Amino acid sequence: MLDSNMKPTSRIAIVGVGQVGAAAAYALILSSIAGELLLVDVRVDWRDGQVRDLSDVAYGINSGTRVRAATHREASQCDVVVITAGSRWSIGETNIQHMHRNVSVMRSVIKAMTPFRSDAIVLVVSNPVDLLTSIAQELSGLPRFQIFGSGTFLDSVRLRGLVADKAQVAADAIHLSVVGIHGDSQVVAWSNATVNGVPLDKFLPPDASGFGHADLEDQCRFHAESIVQVKGSTPFGMGSAVASLCASVLLNRGDVRPVSYFQPDFGCCFSLPVVLGRKGIMRTIGMPLDDHEKAILSRSATKLRETMDRIKTSQ
Amino acid sequence: MLDSNMKPTSRIAIVGVGQVGAAAAYALILSSIAGELLLVDVRVDWRDGQVRDLSDVAYGINSGTRVRAATHREASQCDVVVITAGSRWSIGETNIQHMHRNVSVMRSVIKAMTPFRSDAIVLVVSNPVDLLTSIAQELSGLPRFQIFGSGTFLDSVRLRGLVADKAQVAADAIHLSVVGIHGDSQVVAWSNATVNGVPLDKFLPPDASGFGHADLEDQCRFHAESIVQVKGSTPFGMGSAVASLCASVLLNRGDVRPVSYFQPDFGCCFSLPVVLGRKGIMRTIGMPLDDHEKAILSRSATKLRETMDRIKTSQ
Amino acid sequence: MLDSNMKPTSRIAIVGVGQVGAAAAYALILSSIAGELLLVDVRVDWRDGQVRDLSDVAYGINSGTRVRAATHREASQCDVVVITAGSRWSIGETNIQHMHRNVSVMRSVIKAMTPFRSDAIVLVVSNPVDLLTSIAQELSGLPRFQIFGSGTFLDSVRLRGLVADKAQVAADAIHLSVVGIHGDSQVVAWSNATVNGVPLDKFLPPDASGFGHADLEDQCRFHAESIVQVKGSTPFGMGSAVASLCASVLLNRGDVRPVSYFQPDFGCCFSLPVVLGRKGIMRTIGMPLDDHEKAILSRSATKLRETMDRIKTSQ
Amino acid sequence: MLDSNMKPTSRIAIVGVGQVGAAAAYALILSSIAGELLLVDVRVDWRDGQVRDLSDVAYGINSGTRVRAATHREASQCDVVVITAGSRWSIGETNIQHMHRNVSVMRSVIKAMTPFRSDAIVLVVSNPVDLLTSIAQELSGLPRFQIFGSGTFLDSVRLRGLVADKAQVAADAIHLSVVGIHGDSQVVAWSNATVNGVPLDKFLPPDASGFGHADLEDQCRFHAESIVQVKGSTPFGMGSAVASLCASVLLNRGDVRPVSYFQPDFGCCFSLPVVLGRKGIMRTIGMPLDDHEKAILSRSATKLRETMDRIKTSQ
Repeated sequence: MLDSNMKPTSRIAIVGVGQVGAAAAYALILSSIAGELLLVDVRVDWRDGQVRDLSDVAYGINSGTRVRAATHREASQCDVVVITAGSRWSIGETNIQHMHRNVSVMRSVIKAMTPFRSDAIVLVVSNPVDLLTSIAQELSGLPRFQIFGSGTFLDSVRLRGLVADKAQVAADAIHLSVVGIHGDSQVVAWSNATVNGVPLDKFLPPDASGFGHADLEDQCRFHAESIVQVKGSTPFGMGSAVASLCASVLLNRGDVRPVSYFQPDFGCCFSLPVVLGRKGIMRTIGMPLDDHEKAILSRSATKLRETMDRIKTSQ
Repeated sequence: MLDSNMKPTSRIAIVGVGQVGAAAAYALILSSIAGELLLVDVRVDWRDGQVRDLSDVAYGINSGTRVRAATHREASQCDVVVITAGSRWSIGETNIQHMHRNVSVMRSVIKAMTPFRSDAIVLVVSNPVDLLTSIAQELSGLPRFQIFGSGTFLDSVRLRGLVADKAQVAADAIHLSVVGIHGDSQVVAWSNATVNGVPLDKFLPPDASGFGHADLEDQCRFHAESIVQVKGSTPFGMGSAVASLCASVLLNRGDVRPVSYFQPDFGCCFSLPVVLGRKGIMRTIGMPLDDHEKAILSRSATKLRETMDRIKTSQ
Repeated sequence: MLDSNMKPTSRIAIVGVGQVGAAAAYALILSSIAGELLLVDVRVDWRDGQVRDLSDVAYGINSGTRVRAATHREASQCDVVVITAGSRWSIGETNIQHMHRNVSVMRSVIKAMTPFRSDAIVLVVSNPVDLLTSIAQELSGLPRFQIFGSGTFLDSVRLRGLVADKAQVAADAIHLSVVGIHGDSQVVAWSNATVNGVPLDKFLPPDASGFGHADLEDQCRFHAESIVQVKGSTPFGMGSAVASLCASVLLNRGDVRPVSYFQPDFGCCFSLPVVLGRKGIMRTIGMPLDDHEKAILSRSATKLRETMDRIKTSQ
Repeated sequence: MLDSNMKPTSRIAIVGVGQVGAAAAYALILSSIAGELLLVDVRVDWRDGQVRDLSDVAYGINSGTRVRAATHREASQCDVVVITAGSRWSIGETNIQHMHRNVSVMRSVIKAMTPFRSDAIVLVVSNPVDLLTSIAQELSGLPRFQIFGSGTFLDSVRLRGLVADKAQVAADAIHLSVVGIHGDSQVVAWSNATVNGVPLDKFLPPDASGFGHADLEDQCRFHAESIVQVKGSTPFGMGSAVASLCASVLLNRGDVRPVSYFQPDFGCCFSLPVVLGRKGIMRTIGMPLDDHEKAILSRSATKLRETMDRIKTSQ
C-alpha cells in the first residue's frame, strides 16, 4: 500500500501491544479492514518490534492496512481506539493490588488521549474489563454509546462454539449470550438460546445429549482457565474477538454482540447484547431475562458500583 | 493454479450455464471454494464462451479454482452437482407446457449423469424447484439426504434482508425462514422469527415501525417480481445463494438453511430449515409451526404430490 | 449493514448497469471493498431491477457494501466513478455510426456529472475505450491523472493467464503487459516479459514449448472473440477487472496495471503500465519498448488523434 | 464446522506450537485454507492450551478449519507437515551447542513421524533452517521435491516490502529474491530485480532515491534483528509466511517462492526461487546469478556441507 499524504480512509489504534493487542493487530492486518493501524505502547522498543514484525505480515500479503508506531495523541484521533494496556497479575500481588495498578494505567492512558476525536469509538479490553470500561467511560468525555468493553463477548463466542460442537451445527446458527459482569458472576442467558429460532433446549435436549447447562458452563470455564494457565492470557481468542468488534464498528455492520456498556440503572458497565455500528452502540436489544438471571446481574452490578466508589474515595 | 494430473481437492459441477448458472460460477470462482469448477451445457458454443469468460476472472484474481468445460458424466463424479438446466417461460407457452418441458429436461439431465459418484451432493435450482427436486430425487439413485433444492432459501435471504433494513441490524442477526413450496403458497414462519434469541415482533413491533407481516411479504414479492420483469430471472441473487449452499456442503459447515428436501409424510420435496454439511442434509431442525402454517404446507404439498402423479401417468 | 445518516467510508458509482456494469457491481459487493455502491442508468426500471437483484447478494453474504440507485449528480460525488454506459454494436450499424453513438453517450454522461468531486477518480470502460477515455478526460474538468480507461488491462490479464497455463506457474508470477490502443493495433510487450525477474523467453523458450508469441496472441484473440460471439460482450472478465481496478484505487494499493491514460506526446489516451492509488495514476513506469513496438504505438496513436479531430469538427 | 467421520478435504499439521508455530496456525485458521489443522508438541499442556486458544478463533469466525491436538504419527499423514520444533538460543549456550540441540530435535521429530504419507509435503521452519532441511530431507524417506525449508522467503518478503515503501509501489509488483543460506551469507539477487519487467535500478535509481543496495540490506538486517531482540523470534512475519507457503502447496497455486531445497551440485539445501504446488517443488526457475553472487553461494554451501559431515561423524 502507498504511503500517500492523504488522510487514509479509516484508522484503528491499539493502545498496548502485548500478547492480546498484538494478536488483534495481526488479525486486523490479515483482514485488511482498516487503511491504517497505529500501535501505541509506553515500552518504545517493544512497540517498534511489534510494528516491524507486523509490517512483515502486511508486506507478505500485500495487506491494504499500513501499520506504524504512534503516540497516545495520534491514537485518540482514530476511528476506533482499542485499549489493551494494563498488566497481567504478578506473583505475590493480591487481586486488589492488581486491580489498583490497572485502574491507574487506564487513568493515565485516557488522560494521555483526551480530548478524543468527537466520533471516535473506544473499545476497552484490559481487565477487570467492566470496571475499567466504567472508568474509561467517565474520564473519556465521549458520549456514552461510543465507549464499550469486550466484556463477555469472547465468553459467548466460546460457549456457543462448544455448544455448536455438541449440536453438530455451525456456531453462527446458534444465538446464545453470556451476559453480566465478566468473570465469576457472569450469567448464561440459556432462556434466550435459540437455533434458527427454535429454542436450544428443544434442538439439543440437555438430557438426551448427556450434558446439561451446568456441564457446559463448567467445560467453558475449564477451557478458558487451561489457556490462561499455560499462556498467561488468551491472546488468539481475544485478538480475533477484538478484530471482529472493530469490523462491526468500522464497517457499520449492525452486528448483535454482547459487550460491556453503561447501564444507567446500576451506574456501571456490564455486558448485554447490543447492535454495533459506526456510532458504537446503535441500539440495545432488550433481552428478556428470568428472575434468577436478573438477581445475579443486579447483585454483581451493585458490587461493582461499590468497588468503583471505594476506588474514587481512595484516590 | 497449476493443472496437475492429481485429483483436485474438490470439484463442483454446474449443469446449465445460463444466467443463474453462470452467476453462481462467477461467485464460486471469486471465492475460490473449490479446486475445480466444471461447466456443462448442451449448447456447446455457449458453454465454451462461459468457460472462457469465467477463465478470465480466474486469471485476474489468481483464483484457486480452475474452470473447464465438461460432460454430464464428468459432472456426476464431482463433490457437488448444481443443476440449473431448464428453460425460461416462453411467450405463448402455458405454465403447464413450461412445466412439462422442464420436467423433461430434468429427466434427460439426470439420465445423462447416473450413476452418480456415491457421495455426490446434488443441488437442484431449476424451476418449479420443488417438483423438479422431487423428480431428481426419485431418478438419481442417491440417498435421500444427498439431494436437495434451492427452494425458499433465496426468499428467506431476501425477506431477512428487508427486515434487517427496517430493524437496522445485520441480516445474519435475524433468524427468519420462508418455508414450504417455493412460489405462491410459500409460508413465512413469523412465529419462529428471532433477533439474537429475542422474538422479532418484540424487537421490531409490527405497529410501531409502521408495517406488518403482510406488508413485508408484499414488499418481498414485489422485489422479486420486479427483478424478473426486467431481467427474466434473478441471476445475481440466486447465483450467490447457490455459491453459498455449495460452500455449506463442501466446507462441511453445518449451516442452517431452508432448502427443499424429501418430506416422507407428503411424498414430495419442499423447504424446511435443515443443517447442511458434506453429507448433504445432516439433520432436520424440527421447527415448530402454528396450525395455520401447517395447514398451508399440507394443502400445497398435497397439490404438488398430485401434480407429480399426473406427470407420471402422462409419461 | 446499517443505513446510517453518516457519510459512508467510501463510495463507488457505476454509470451504466448493463452486462459489464452489473458484473462489476456483483464482484464489488462480494468483496465488500466499498461502503456504498451507487448504480446509475437512464433505463430506470432496468436500474432498479439491478439494484434489487444485487441487494439480494448483499443481504445473503452480509456484505459491508450497500447498493442503491442514484442519479448522475450523486455518482459524480463518489470516490470512484466507473463509466460503462454506451451501447453494443447493433445489426446494420457501421463501426463509425456505432462510435459516434457512444461518443455522444459519453458526452451526455460526463455533462450530467460535472462538476465532479475534486478528488474523484473516473474509470472509463465503454468502447472504443481509448477514444472515449480521451473525450471524458477533456470534458471532465478533472486533473489528468484522475481519469483513466480499462484499456488493455483485461487483454493483459488474459494473455498472462494463457501463458501461465502453458508455463505451469501462477499468473501473478508473470509480468507481461499488453499496451497501446485496445483492439487490433494493441501491442504485447514481449521484450519486457519476466517470470520472477527471469526473462519469459528463457523460462519458457518459444520453440521448446511448441508455440511462439504469434500463436499466443492468436489464441488470446480467439479467446476474446469467441466470448463476444456468443455473449455479445465479456461481462465476467471485464466485471472482475473493473472491480480489481476499483480496489487498486480505493485501497491505495500501488498496483502496477496497464491502463489507458493521457499521453502528452500524442494528445490522446492509450495504455501503458502505471502505478494506481487513491489519487489515480500515481506515477508512470517508463517501460522500455523496442523500435518495432514504438512504431506501432506511434502509428495507432496518430490515427486515434485524427479520429478525435474529425469528431470535433463534425460536432 | 461439523466434525464428521469423513476424511476432511485437506489437513495441515504443525509440529511445534511455540510462538512461530502458533502464529502460523492463527493465520491458517483465519484464512480457512485447510479443513483440519493438527497441532503437535511434546509439551502436552502447552499444546492443549494452544488448541483451545485457537479453537476460540475458529468458533468466533466460523472458520472452515477445525483445530485439534494430534500425535507425530497423525501429523505425518497430513497433506502438509510444518516443522517449527526446536529451541531458541539459551543464555550461556554456544551457537554450536544450540545447533546440535536442534539437530537432535529434528532427528527425533522426523523419526517419530516416518513413514510419511507418500504424497505429504514437509516444510521445515526451525533454525538453522538450511541445515535442518538438509537433515530432514535425508531422514524423511520422501522424494526430494516434497521437502523444503522456509529459507530466505521471509527475508525476501521483508526486503521487497522495504523497497516497495521507497518505490511507492505495491510489494507484489516487485520481483526480488534473497537467495542462498539463510543468515549472514544470504545473497540479494539485485541483478534480477524487476518492477513489472522493468529493471528495479531503472525504476528506482539507487542514487536518485538517496540509498543504495547496501543501505537497503542493512536496513533489512536491522529490521529483523530489532524484532528478535525484543521478541526472541519473528513470530508474526514467519507465521504469515508459513501460512502463505502452505496455501501455495495445498491450493496448488504455482507461486514462485525462494525456499530452501536440495541442491545436487552442493549436496545440501539452500534457497533459490522455485514453483510451488501440491507436489511440493514443481519446477526450478533457473535464475541467472552473476559471478559474485555465485561465488558467495558456492562458498557458503561448501561450509554448510562440511558442517553436515562433521555432525554425521560426531553422531
